[in-house]
Amino acid sequence: MSDHAEAPVTPVEAHEPPYYLAVFTTVRTQEQSDYSETNARMEDLVKDIPGYLGMDHAQTPGGLGITVGYFRDADALTQWRTDAEHRAAQRRGRAEWYQSYTLHVAKVERSQGFTREVAQSPAAG
Amino acid sequence: MSDHAEAPVTPVEAHEPPYYLAVFTTVRTQEQSDYSETNARMEDLVKDIPGYLGMDHAQTPGGLGITVGYFRDADALTQWRTDAEHRAAQRRGRAEWYQSYTLHVAKVERSQGFTREVAQSPAAG
Repeated sequence: MSDHAEAPVTPVEAHEPPYYLAVFTTVRTQEQSDYSETNARMEDLVKDIPGYLGMDHAQTPGGLGITVGYFRDADALTQWRTDAEHRAAQRRGRAEWYQSYTLHVAKVERSQGFTREVAQSPAAG
Repeated sequence: MSDHAEAPVTPVEAHEPPYYLAVFTTVRTQEQSDYSETNARMEDLVKDIPGYLGMDHAQTPGGLGITVGYFRDADALTQWRTDAEHRAAQRRGRAEWYQSYTLHVAKVERSQGFTREVAQSPAAG
């Protein structure tokens, strides 16, 4: 379940709307052969899509996985959705890796970011 | 980090578009006093919003948390955003619980669900 252990812990930042996102929620099966390798390959592939803005991923151990991909426009998302190697991975996901999933494709209308200004440290005074 | 251990592992299903979602990605601080209790209270409160459709949550241990809330329309989301008790929790989150977060509010244009038809079991023949 540590497929994404190497991913940075920084969330994708708020971009200027409009942009698109795809929320992919998954419950996995016990059959995970080649899942990690395929996933890593997909993470590499998507970076080549013009207009790709980034990806957030979280996985509750033994529970729900959520991946959110961000794209500049609908065309970028369509290009990713129809990529031949990605489609093959989708088919294999339905055949083997996923007990269930839901995909929500949405156009971002508003976004907001927050970053703590000072590093957390013991009170100085 | 098991704040959501009691949550069902079923992702929120695909609804008929259009509907709204809010993706909330968080990196937490070391200061988590009252976080679990407040979070549980928010999960109860949001259920009272007319048009609330559900919530997905995943938390990578020591890493990113992603919460996605789903709402029938923009008004439902506005009602939740401006709820007085929710706003107080937001302020406390910025003051104590979150190192950083990003919020993306988006209108769903397309959705799709998949559920495995047969229960996973050893091949029957």
